[in-house]
Amino acid sequence: MADEFLAQCVTIVGAAHVLTDAHDTAAALSEPRGLWHGRARAVLRPASVDEVSRLLALCNAARVPVVPQGGNTGLVGGQTPDASGASVVLSLARLNRVREIDPQSNTMTVEAGLTLAGAQTAAESADRLFPLSLASEGSCTIGGNLATNAGGTAVIAYGNARDLVLGIECVLADGRVLSNLSKLKKDNTGYDLKHLIMGSEGTLGVITAATLKLFERPRAVETAFIGLASPAHALDLLVRARAAAGGMITTFEVVPRIGIEFVLRHARNVREPLGGVAPWYVLLEISGHDSAALQGAMSVLLEAVLEAGVIDDAVIAASLEHRKDFWRLREELSDAQKPEGGSIKHDISVPLASVPQFIDEATRAVEAFIPGARVVAFGHLGDGNVHFNVSQPVGADKQVFLARWQAMNDIVHAIVLRHGGSISAEHGIGQLKRDELARVKDPVALEVMRAVKAALDPNGILNPGKVL
Amino acid sequence: MADEFLAQCVTIVGAAHVLTDAHDTAAALSEPRGLWHGRARAVLRPASVDEVSRLLALCNAARVPVVPQGGNTGLVGGQTPDASGASVVLSLARLNRVREIDPQSNTMTVEAGLTLAGAQTAAESADRLFPLSLASEGSCTIGGNLATNAGGTAVIAYGNARDLVLGIECVLADGRVLSNLSKLKKDNTGYDLKHLIMGSEGTLGVITAATLKLFERPRAVETAFIGLASPAHALDLLVRARAAAGGMITTFEVVPRIGIEFVLRHARNVREPLGGVAPWYVLLEISGHDSAALQGAMSVLLEAVLEAGVIDDAVIAASLEHRKDFWRLREELSDAQKPEGGSIKHDISVPLASVPQFIDEATRAVEAFIPGARVVAFGHLGDGNVHFNVSQPVGADKQVFLARWQAMNDIVHAIVLRHGGSISAEHGIGQLKRDELARVKDPVALEVMRAVKAALDPNGILNPGKVL
Repeated sequence: MADEFLAQCVTIVGAAHVLTDAHDTAAALSEPRGLWHGRARAVLRPASVDEVSRLLALCNAARVPVVPQGGNTGLVGGQTPDASGASVVLSLARLNRVREIDPQSNTMTVEAGLTLAGAQTAAESADRLFPLSLASEGSCTIGGNLATNAGGTAVIAYGNARDLVLGIECVLADGRVLSNLSKLKKDNTGYDLKHLIMGSEGTLGVITAATLKLFERPRAVETAFIGLASPAHALDLLVRARAAAGGMITTFEVVPRIGIEFVLRHARNVREPLGGVAPWYVLLEISGHDSAALQGAMSVLLEAVLEAGVIDDAVIAASLEHRKDFWRLREELSDAQKPEGGSIKHDISVPLASVPQFIDEATRAVEAFIPGARVVAFGHLGDGNVHFNVSQPVGADKQVFLARWQAMNDIVHAIVLRHGGSISAEHGIGQLKRDELARVKDPVALEVMRAVKAALDPNGILNPGKVL
Repeated sequence: MADEFLAQCVTIVGAAHVLTDAHDTAAALSEPRGLWHGRARAVLRPASVDEVSRLLALCNAARVPVVPQGGNTGLVGGQTPDASGASVVLSLARLNRVREIDPQSNTMTVEAGLTLAGAQTAAESADRLFPLSLASEGSCTIGGNLATNAGGTAVIAYGNARDLVLGIECVLADGRVLSNLSKLKKDNTGYDLKHLIMGSEGTLGVITAATLKLFERPRAVETAFIGLASPAHALDLLVRARAAAGGMITTFEVVPRIGIEFVLRHARNVREPLGGVAPWYVLLEISGHDSAALQGAMSVLLEAVLEAGVIDDAVIAASLEHRKDFWRLREELSDAQKPEGGSIKHDISVPLASVPQFIDEATRAVEAFIPGARVVAFGHLGDGNVHFNVSQPVGADKQVFLARWQAMNDIVHAIVLRHGGSISAEHGIGQLKRDELARVKDPVALEVMRAVKAALDPNGILNPGKVL
């Protein structure tokens, strides 16, 4: 039976692209951090939407579960198979063409396996901007970005991944191709199926291509590193910055002092951003077309908030190199937590107005739960999205600390939910948060999700065990 | 049987809000232009989400079709019942509260029956902008705006109605309440059900409230009325304006000379916008926080495009009154077509780069089909959305002309589809375009839409005969 199935796969994609040897499949069966492992009958590597269609029709008929995989960079185990070995992994890596760039319409049509960096570069080649930007952009792919509705650092100005999409091409569970690579900004002809597929983490369809929005490349940017007393002050700064600079704000990231200390301790080519030390920091960027206007706006804003006591200190990047120094402090933050021992993560969002109170309450709760635990709460404050990470107490046993992951999640997520927040702001559900989703999500929403899943994938072959 | 059903409705909303008298129901059974009429068992006027829920549970059990209705301003017959008299009209008019405004989070939660103008005013009261803007904003409601994913004049800068929504509360066909009045910009916990409900024209659920995005109010605006030779020149202007002013462009509307002539002939308080006459016009606005910077950007842009031969002439509004004069020319365009006789409408969009060619091809085709027919193609060029209207030949018989509505639609829509366009850019499908949708839409998309409809509304009580 297995041989017959794989033989049919071979007729569709060729023997070279039906991987079964342990050496060939290892990279696809485990995600890079090693947190999620699985087994599979094969890793299939189609090269066209037609091949994806024929493979899915085959899998659906044979009731073989399919795990779509892009760059394998997801953080919640959505892209790896379970331990049963019954699934196939469907790699989109070979669908990686730029099909078309249309600078007049400001659109670009690319295939799912193109890396995000590849998409950014393609846009730049046409003197345009594709603004999605993530830490993993060198290896994550557009298909995965859309399937998980990725976030990143540019959401405050340009929205989440789904907001950057005009049309998608995707293959349904039974192999039917739902193709609407529309360049249209306005199209009210029926239900918006692309938004249903996007963010479904491969459980409703396999995205094979997308038509993306392009933007003008900002010609100028002003970057400031700002020291201030608390998240409440950071929120005050954000509200005043919006009033002064509105749509020009392209970055508003918050970092606590302990995060800067971790980076200074463990990363290379980094230095204190300000003359003194501050309890909290904001990395603020405004972008536009007129350098002088931006400089003026930034100066006026910073003087006003300094005078009003909202901030304690600020330095404006004096050069591109200086700007990179600022960004390095933010970008090294994830890696710099590793040498400090175990770290329990929370990728949460709350309404903007609740961010300071959330950080305050959650910090107290965590410190009461594990005395000495070190909260590193940082991230996209401008979007209400905080990576509320907790490093183990100095000198504590890492495994003992990490064993309390779920218990700490429960404590923090309870506070998130009390503030009307989300337990997964940008990383998705995958395997990691599937059970928790079933507990915390509105039961009616879960019922509707299950009804939609049953309607689109009646045999349940698409990424089973993920999300629902 | 009927009495029993209506008696149960009375127990839910009270006798005063179960309208059956012809005098009381007339306004709800016919849309204002008189194009669509219908009959109904009653017009029900609930005042809360709980009453909506109980009414829908009752209708679902009794298999009574439900036609949701907001401001009754839709242009495609989506909000009126059919002729059978079997339906009830569910008016959301009494759910019209502003539940909350949160200026820090930049969100506002309002009920479905609030008028768009009411929502705009509520935002202004908190010194914020709710940017959705339509001709019918005084009477259309937020619920209808979201159910139909309304467009309007601010889409170029702020997106369509669905892009302005963070969360919705809606009642499903069987009365279950799907409530997610989220203030979150980022929430990846499962399928995006709000985008599925929005734009479904009341066929998947009844929206009762929504949490909307608010924006900073621009402090300054520069408005120019520009004369140029053709739609191709207008597209060239748009591309150059984007490069020069990027995200600052908040209006880019195109008007042909014949449209200006109609307005000058039939509207009051209007005058020629430029010293001379031009074949085509663009109304361009850029908005921001710094008046001097805007003035500079507009001057530099207009000088450059004048010198490059992209435009022939331009006048910048010198005062608020002058700006209103410019806008009046655009706003009176719809009414000014009426005294010219019959007008056959097409609410279409094509990729931006195709707009000039589409207008050229469709104009030739229409003039060949009906010699003397007068094309009035105007609208949201910045979004690729053209209201391609055709006025009857001077002196022709109106009814004979209008009898060719469908035949002309077929000709124009064939050109739209060849350019990858949409036959309904912003007005939706309703009754008007239901049969045509079945002919022109991707069959797989139609199958998925029907599967979703069957999953969410198995008895088909929600707005039957609309969209699908």
